[in-house]
Amino acid sequence: MAEPRNILFIMFDQLRWDYLSCSGHPFLKTPHIDRLAGRGVRFTRAYIQSPLCGPSRMSTYTGRYVHSHGASFNNVPLKVGERTMGDHLRDLGMGCWLVGKTHMAADAEGMRRLGLEPDSVIGARVGECGFDVFERDDGMRPEGPDGFYDPRGALAYNDYLRGRGYEGDNPWHDHANSGIDEAGKVLSGWFLTNADRPANIREEDSETPYLTRRGMEFIESQGDRRWLCHLSYIKPHWPYIAPEPYASMYGPQDVLPPVRAQAERETDHPVFRGFQNAPVGRALSRDDVRDKVLRAYMGLIKQCDDQMGVLIDWLEKTGRMDETMIVVTSDHGDFMGDHWMGEKTFFHDASVKVPLIVYDPSPAADSTRGTTCDALVESIDLLPTFVEAAGGDPARLDHVLEGFSLLPVLRGGAAPARAAVFCEYDYAATTLAGTLGLGPAEARMFMVFDGRFKLIHFEGGFRPMLFDLDADPGELDDLGASPAHEAVRAALVDRLAAWARRPAARTTISSEALRAARGRSDRTGVLIGVVDAADVDPEVAAKYVGRKARDLRAGPKE
Amino acid sequence: MAEPRNILFIMFDQLRWDYLSCSGHPFLKTPHIDRLAGRGVRFTRAYIQSPLCGPSRMSTYTGRYVHSHGASFNNVPLKVGERTMGDHLRDLGMGCWLVGKTHMAADAEGMRRLGLEPDSVIGARVGECGFDVFERDDGMRPEGPDGFYDPRGALAYNDYLRGRGYEGDNPWHDHANSGIDEAGKVLSGWFLTNADRPANIREEDSETPYLTRRGMEFIESQGDRRWLCHLSYIKPHWPYIAPEPYASMYGPQDVLPPVRAQAERETDHPVFRGFQNAPVGRALSRDDVRDKVLRAYMGLIKQCDDQMGVLIDWLEKTGRMDETMIVVTSDHGDFMGDHWMGEKTFFHDASVKVPLIVYDPSPAADSTRGTTCDALVESIDLLPTFVEAAGGDPARLDHVLEGFSLLPVLRGGAAPARAAVFCEYDYAATTLAGTLGLGPAEARMFMVFDGRFKLIHFEGGFRPMLFDLDADPGELDDLGASPAHEAVRAALVDRLAAWARRPAARTTISSEALRAARGRSDRTGVLIGVVDAADVDPEVAAKYVGRKARDLRAGPKE
Repeated sequence: MAEPRNILFIMFDQLRWDYLSCSGHPFLKTPHIDRLAGRGVRFTRAYIQSPLCGPSRMSTYTGRYVHSHGASFNNVPLKVGERTMGDHLRDLGMGCWLVGKTHMAADAEGMRRLGLEPDSVIGARVGECGFDVFERDDGMRPEGPDGFYDPRGALAYNDYLRGRGYEGDNPWHDHANSGIDEAGKVLSGWFLTNADRPANIREEDSETPYLTRRGMEFIESQGDRRWLCHLSYIKPHWPYIAPEPYASMYGPQDVLPPVRAQAERETDHPVFRGFQNAPVGRALSRDDVRDKVLRAYMGLIKQCDDQMGVLIDWLEKTGRMDETMIVVTSDHGDFMGDHWMGEKTFFHDASVKVPLIVYDPSPAADSTRGTTCDALVESIDLLPTFVEAAGGDPARLDHVLEGFSLLPVLRGGAAPARAAVFCEYDYAATTLAGTLGLGPAEARMFMVFDGRFKLIHFEGGFRPMLFDLDADPGELDDLGASPAHEAVRAALVDRLAAWARRPAARTTISSEALRAARGRSDRTGVLIGVVDAADVDPEVAAKYVGRKARDLRAGPKE
Repeated sequence: MAEPRNILFIMFDQLRWDYLSCSGHPFLKTPHIDRLAGRGVRFTRAYIQSPLCGPSRMSTYTGRYVHSHGASFNNVPLKVGERTMGDHLRDLGMGCWLVGKTHMAADAEGMRRLGLEPDSVIGARVGECGFDVFERDDGMRPEGPDGFYDPRGALAYNDYLRGRGYEGDNPWHDHANSGIDEAGKVLSGWFLTNADRPANIREEDSETPYLTRRGMEFIESQGDRRWLCHLSYIKPHWPYIAPEPYASMYGPQDVLPPVRAQAERETDHPVFRGFQNAPVGRALSRDDVRDKVLRAYMGLIKQCDDQMGVLIDWLEKTGRMDETMIVVTSDHGDFMGDHWMGEKTFFHDASVKVPLIVYDPSPAADSTRGTTCDALVESIDLLPTFVEAAGGDPARLDHVLEGFSLLPVLRGGAAPARAAVFCEYDYAATTLAGTLGLGPAEARMFMVFDGRFKLIHFEGGFRPMLFDLDADPGELDDLGASPAHEAVRAALVDRLAAWARRPAARTTISSEALRAARGRSDRTGVLIGVVDAADVDPEVAAKYVGRKARDLRAGPKE
């Protein structure tokens, strides 16, 4: 078998790169993911394009930087016209299906303008970021005084839960993501103080096993059709609360201390300080809160790993391991109190580096099984990888796809020749932007990391930050104002500028076509700077010489 | 009358900013355009976004930089999904119609992907850059060994000519754009040596008067409907050949000497040298060729001006001057041998600065009639101006439109607060890119001009060029390697970088919406970093506290 027949593209949400035993976690054992790593290649320096669900995913699904596709924050619609994973794969005869989360928001204005009906085949795909939907489940049904965050959120899952006997208007909240007290009162998982409670749900009904089963149901439904299945788990993303037995699986002794330094707390950088001072930074900087949250987080990851075991066993049993490429990754990490922050919206490795394991069933990949690759890779590399695995040529799409196929690496070849990785964060819609008095164009920041130095550039007139990951792998020592590093910073700023100037919007003509057009315009008769017929090829001149016409100077004909 | 009812948006093609008497040409008198300038505002520093027809126009028609819309070279399709002048104006109840040239290439791949039929109303607009088409005439019907440059080129005009008795398969070439010798042989206007011949056509049948009449026919067809008419002339663009009496109107004494210096000829800059050495640079550097070409060019401009007289007289006679905003501009200039170059594809003012006259019939504009405005403006400012004139609010579109409305200037207010203008040229599809060994991403250059200093940045590793227009208005002294100007160059490079990092693709959410979203997510129940209910507003917490659910620890219900 030369090529994988199908692609199982598994994404976890908010899974840190270092919370797997294969990447070195001392207490959290993830034997099933490790087993997949043992059969594939584990990329040790995989970076996402934005430390936030929506923009990170839109980059993965389009193969383009956030600066290119523009969906730079959660719920900022991906503009109509952006080519997606589904567009590329369907062109190659492979279906592209969603089971789980995308965080996609449809561009309703653009769809209206182009007359795309949301319930047409094309309109539905445009509205779902190019996927055909087996089940969309963004894993959230929050509700506040202004209504639901996402009126469609978790509808199918809530129906499932009700069918299993969980009552109420929102069992997603009351059971899957909350505990319960002795009086029968719901202890909401939205409150971090409840993270040490067991979720009030049977383990098999919780979200992770549910989506595993939905993924298997999808795969079984496909028969002989070629498919990519984006099995997109919700966890270990918050609400941080796990069902038993995972809720009580990890104790205080399993919690690693936060990676943080007092010097960070005392930073003079207004933006870094602003993120530390956000409620989630303050909360996760409290050891009591962090301890509860981290134990739930580890439990949720352990559950994810067990589900990987279920899935891989099933794929093996049904003979699908031999024809299915399997990818395991995440959309971003989670600070978990590192650097005095929570959540993910900054550029330390805890947030922007993700697990990435690719298993390629092809015999051509046998030589790399169980190896690691330390090259700098980005989440935008996945789509070119899939295009190549599906039989396409990513080089012919380099005017659209901004990453590189990893297939050569899987098969013993060279890693992408990439000088740096780029990540962006747009906080224009956040409270912090208002606090800092920033306009919508200013509340943005960029990361450029060359494998040793990581520069963070801020719009809005703030000084940069800089880390030397060779000398300071914990990223605790901000060299953004260090006189000794002026040249390093200048070089990275230049690199960022060159990247920003790239022709990312020139998506309608291939590099091949541009090269082929060179010097060809005279072949269609456009002669520029040609003094007389002797200046051009006789074949070209022939169209314009020797022609006869009536001489109007001889007077009117009419 | 408060607002203009209609907008007549006139664009000439390849008309230099300084080839009008109102802008100071000593020998070429353009009284009709001058008359319009006397009734409106003449912008003395108006810059286009790319020195080439297609990309310049796509910027004008979308209100966005080339780096944003991506149609960076002639015939590179404008990608489906870009919002156009037509989209914006129709939203405001104003039609948006084309009479003449756009150089638009449809994004066939994108249209296919989105299921847009070229013959549907929406598909036709998408394929015509948002315009409804009264007549599309790109003014060219070249033919070479590989066929027609544009199979649809000048079809209607050729039909018109045949109806007027001009025979043959391509009277556009044989009559409108060629002379004839004594033996009845066509002397093709494609050959510069024939530029001193009169075109073998009656003046009234040549392209400029033809399009004037078509414009008037369009306007008459509209009745009471509000319209923008893009009356888009082909001339004075090449082929350089004019009908009588314009062919013999200007003699050698009317030809200004080229603006050039021997030092430019001896430049060490490979790209600048490459453009000089292109056939058109070599040809226009010959005085004999330049003399012929320039006299034809001036004749063509004089004809354009006379047609402006016809049009303005007609608008006055029919009462339309009082309700019609009139804009006269060009898509770029023409080197005409200045700086040892021909054509337009570089960044000296001869190419990138254009005439721009705006006449606003509103009484609110009475105070500015006959004035000039020296502020830096760009062709992307026209669309916001039209949006405002049509009754819209460009500020609410600042996530899409990258320019500024000029309406305030017309009505005695402040000019746009713009620190610099930007222009780009993508020569990836040219012979020169091959000669220099450049890849498709490298054969690109940018101009940033702050009103005094003009920096040209080249991708591909070349040094920049720099001109000080205060000290050297002729742009003859390249300071790109001057040690004294290092800080000036660095500042402009930084300005270019900041521009390149702008969030140009974030077109699906307005600045207003981003600001309004700040700190609102908890209002839809998303609680991040909330330790317990006391941390949030009671109204928010209320959705999650006090809920009741069955305690599953009590055992199974089923």
